[in-house]
Amino acid sequence: MRKLPLHSGARGLDDDCAVLEVGGETLIITHDAMTQGTHFREDANMADVAWKLVATNLSDLAAKGAEPIGVLLGHSLGDGDARFLEGLNEALTALAVPLLGGDTVAPKGPRTLGLTAIGRATHNPVPPRSGARAGDAIYVTGQLGAAMLGFEGDPAYLNAFNRPLPLLAEGQALAPYVTAIMDVSDGLLLDAWRMAKASGASFKLDSTAIPVAAPHRLDECIRWGDDYQLLFTAGPATKLPVPASHIGTVEAADSPALYLDGKALSPEDGLGYSHTKPA
Amino acid sequence: MRKLPLHSGARGLDDDCAVLEVGGETLIITHDAMTQGTHFREDANMADVAWKLVATNLSDLAAKGAEPIGVLLGHSLGDGDARFLEGLNEALTALAVPLLGGDTVAPKGPRTLGLTAIGRATHNPVPPRSGARAGDAIYVTGQLGAAMLGFEGDPAYLNAFNRPLPLLAEGQALAPYVTAIMDVSDGLLLDAWRMAKASGASFKLDSTAIPVAAPHRLDECIRWGDDYQLLFTAGPATKLPVPASHIGTVEAADSPALYLDGKALSPEDGLGYSHTKPA
Repeated sequence: MRKLPLHSGARGLDDDCAVLEVGGETLIITHDAMTQGTHFREDANMADVAWKLVATNLSDLAAKGAEPIGVLLGHSLGDGDARFLEGLNEALTALAVPLLGGDTVAPKGPRTLGLTAIGRATHNPVPPRSGARAGDAIYVTGQLGAAMLGFEGDPAYLNAFNRPLPLLAEGQALAPYVTAIMDVSDGLLLDAWRMAKASGASFKLDSTAIPVAAPHRLDECIRWGDDYQLLFTAGPATKLPVPASHIGTVEAADSPALYLDGKALSPEDGLGYSHTKPA
Repeated sequence: MRKLPLHSGARGLDDDCAVLEVGGETLIITHDAMTQGTHFREDANMADVAWKLVATNLSDLAAKGAEPIGVLLGHSLGDGDARFLEGLNEALTALAVPLLGGDTVAPKGPRTLGLTAIGRATHNPVPPRSGARAGDAIYVTGQLGAAMLGFEGDPAYLNAFNRPLPLLAEGQALAPYVTAIMDVSDGLLLDAWRMAKASGASFKLDSTAIPVAAPHRLDECIRWGDDYQLLFTAGPATKLPVPASHIGTVEAADSPALYLDGKALSPEDGLGYSHTKPA
């Protein structure tokens, strides 16, 4: 796809969002899709699926410090549509983002749902995922592994998996202070590796500093995705406007992109997304 | 969906596009999806499918007089992906619209492809589909039924079906002059009925004035969709900037929404989209 005619605001397709300058304002635009059987199960509560479709797209806006303007839905009809509309209504209301439009199709088989979210940048330049510099500190908000516990049925964590909250206020507060930022959707280690690669830097993480929901299952918590926390880097003296854990340091890229407790790791080691327990 | 929290620019979801005021500019945004088995056949050339996905969304922009800025793709992986990318490249290049971003999923079954197109209005107010007034003349560009002949395999019309051209220049030229406008995607009669209903008016069409690709199959040509011509209304004295056929007259809505040669028609009569031969 990188060989296609790209808009300059596509940022080479290396970022989660497009950045579009319009009449003195900066729009942030993202499109994420979810497909039945991969992103949600046949028996999923479609109200939760609708919520998550909205929340995950808004999480991409959050990582750009954007304020949501509206969403367009690409809906596929199917079982549970009434529940889907309920969940969509709940998400749009709770997250204060209106529907701008969209389309509805009737697929002959598993459903693919798409959402386009449009927001307004609250800070210029819009923080990239590629700006980490040697000497920066690495931070993450919140706790990792909460969505994993929710997926497994732990009643205390069901909402973390089913009804994640995009960190919009946190992203807006952080945008002026960070050198790189992204949301953790596919696992902390994998997303940290991606940020390091995009930045041309090496990330050294300290596992004991990473906040996790299940400390005895650290390896899984830092590889599971779906937590939608914000991973970011900032100069070491930066005073942060929101609580976050200092989990490592950026070094120059004369070595592998990612170290955990001094050990180099790469995607072949299973850094995230697959949701399988690492060996 | 109309009960969901709607953005004011969603125009009540009654239009093909959302209209968004940003920093003194007006953006036009649309999202259309195509699903395998409904919008394209299993054995379709995926290059043509990609072209059509782009062209049909840009046709919605054309009907608003918008100039395309970029598109976001919601791609579903599957057979023919190399061809899909070729066709996408051809469409983006030929139609001069760059890719802004998107997402890729791997569905377990038939594919649903979505595209979000964003454009800039070239005329304010942005012409609605709901503005037809009693006394206006009704016009359509080009010829109807060409896509139908292409679908049936007529070599002279293959491109009309497989590679439709969005009438962007025509839409931009017309925007200052029309009272209502939309693209004809689902059949002239059905779309005329929709425009009349949206406008609270009655459309009287004269079948002998409607330009069709197969005159001996008039009934089918004016019910088949996929031609992406522009249907519009304008004051009777308006000098049009582009060629178009004068196919009827708008009257006040104290009668059914649509008449063809003096006979009232409604969607129950099979006005379009179903692609079946009318009785």
